[in-house]
Formats: sequence, structure tokens, C-alpha cells
Amino acid sequence: MTVAANFNIALLHYPVYDKNRDVVATAVTNLDIHDIARSARTYGVSRYYIVTPVEEQRRLVEKIRQHWLSGWGSTYNPKRKLALELLQTENSLAEAILDIEKRTGRRPKTVVTGASGRDNSVSFSDLKALIDAEPEQPFLMLLGTGWGLTEEVFDKSDYVLEPISGGGDYNHLSVRSAASIMLDRLFGR
Amino acid sequence: MTVAANFNIALLHYPVYDKNRDVVATAVTNLDIHDIARSARTYGVSRYYIVTPVEEQRRLVEKIRQHWLSGWGSTYNPKRKLALELLQTENSLAEAILDIEKRTGRRPKTVVTGASGRDNSVSFSDLKALIDAEPEQPFLMLLGTGWGLTEEVFDKSDYVLEPISGGGDYNHLSVRSAASIMLDRLFGR
Repeated sequence: MTVAANFNIALLHYPVYDKNRDVVATAVTNLDIHDIARSARTYGVSRYYIVTPVEEQRRLVEKIRQHWLSGWGSTYNPKRKLALELLQTENSLAEAILDIEKRTGRRPKTVVTGASGRDNSVSFSDLKALIDAEPEQPFLMLLGTGWGLTEEVFDKSDYVLEPISGGGDYNHLSVRSAASIMLDRLFGR
Repeated sequence: MTVAANFNIALLHYPVYDKNRDVVATAVTNLDIHDIARSARTYGVSRYYIVTPVEEQRRLVEKIRQHWLSGWGSTYNPKRKLALELLQTENSLAEAILDIEKRTGRRPKTVVTGASGRDNSVSFSDLKALIDAEPEQPFLMLLGTGWGLTEEVFDKSDYVLEPISGGGDYNHLSVRSAASIMLDRLFGR
């Protein structure tokens, strides 16, 4: 059992802002599925939820998942199969939370991420200490798409994770890069 | 001037292995351009070279670059412009090395990366110490595509960087994730 065995991540395609700060549902991106699943498997994460209320989009993700799990992709690249086994689609954040509760018997603490900090942000080492202190407590880290997760998601989360700083003031990593760096900071070595 | 001001990265589309360990030139991927450029800008890297001997592919990268630098994209998303300003296409690794030599007056030390270690691998902290010890010395970190950089590239490089470990034995990050994690380990905070 890895340190990350009770750690889950969710990529939310709703509710997020668009460029004009309207709340929208974004489209699923194929490389978000693959890159983040590969990072999740590398660091021993429990589940990787793709959350979208659009049924057709969930069906598309399932189709990709099946291709790599039992279709042609499973023999072409078995390493990809190991990564995509972590994948699970959910209709809403509430459903992802319920799924973890059902599996583990405990309600997960949610950790929201984004490019700007909050007064109540926890640092990476704070969060690591929280995870280490209570191995039975499940966590769910929330990743946004589009122009980021809505205020409501921030307000409702148990923790806000500090933004990734590269030393300068440019702070526009892709969600794929940000997810990988976050997992490395929490569970790498 | 950032710590990474003399640090450069190159994404090599040749010479790399395919699945059958034949040496091939891979195709450029749009998200490799964007994700790695955004990470490079975040950590203050000097240049991001896209290396391919296929002229049509270099032209494609230039077209994408121009779209974001002076085309429609430059006003739609100026943050992307800042990232893609670091982008430069080269015909070969030798040309990228020459370009750095021309710009800085010094031949860069090359650091090759890959998913498997070598007897002579340097750790992230070793490499960080080397960079800090000699701020005037340019470095060029080599990232592979396809099934990885050829033995010849490994043999000719000054340093081999240790592979990223996530604690387990799964070691199949995307090159976009790996590049981001490497830059964070070297230059993050």
C-alpha cells in the first residue's frame, strides 16, 4: 500500500469558468485522460475521476477506456491499460465524493487547486503532513479545466492548495503539467 | 535573471526508437509544443527547441508559433504568447547546440533524460548543484519522443539524469508530464 493509496483526483469539466467568467461545461480532452492517468498510476493514486454532466462525453471517455482496457489497445500497450484502470467517469463532484464514501466508508476531504492562492491556502508540505497523519482518511484533489473551478467549488472545499510557483510571476501551466507536479510534490520520493 | 536563465530544453523527434526499436523520426504533437513551452516559461528556462529533420514539420511548428505570437492567438491569449516566445525549431541536436554556443559564447553541457537509469546517472540534486556552481555555463536538457532517445544520444551526452520515480515500479509518464516534473525538481521554489 502506497502513501497515495487513499488519495484520489478528479478532473472537473463542470462547474468551471470560461474566458468571460461564465459558468460552463468544457469538453473532455483525450490527452487529459491519458497524461493524468499515467501520472496517477506513477504516484500510486487510488482513483482518477473524470467528471462531466454531459452523458455523451462520459460515453466517449468510457469508449476510450474500454479500448485500452480490453480492446485492441490492451495488447498494443499494456502500460496504458495499467494507467487507465484508475479511470472512472462521474456525473458530478457529489457523485465522485459518494463513490469514495461507498468504497472506503469515509467521506473524503476535498482539496481544491487553482492558479491563484487564497488566504486559507495550505502548502504542499501542510497537505502532505495531513495525509501522513491519518492514512485511513481519503482525500479528493480537484483539478479544473477551462478558466478554472468556480468560487462555489472553492468555498465548499475542505482545503485550498497553494498554487505552483516556478519562481517568477508566470503561472499558466496546463492542467496536465500542474497535476503531475502536484503529485510529485506530494508523493515523489 | 532566474536560476534557469542558462538552462535550455530540446524535444527531439529524431533520433528516437519506435516500438520495435527501429530508429525513426516521430511526428510533432501540438500539445507537446504548448504544454512544455508553458512549463518552460513558468520556471524561467531560456529556450525550448523543437528538433526535427523533417522540414514540413518545422514549418508546421513555425505556423503554430506565429499564430500565437503575432496572429489571432496573440490577442486572444497573451499568456500563450509569452510561453511560445521561448520556442525555436532546429534541424538537428547539433544545430541546437550550435545556437546556444552562438548566443552565449559557450558550448552547452547536455543532459539526457529517459525512463531508465544508467550507471553514470546524476541525481536531480547533483544536477542542481552543477547548475548553481557555474551560472555562466549553459545546459541543454534532452527530452525524447516515441519510445525514447537512442543509445547514441545517451553515449554522447555529458550527463544522464536519473529517471523520475513515483515510489512504485510504474514508470511511463508522458513527456509533457516528465518535463514539467523535471523543471519543478530543478527550479521549483
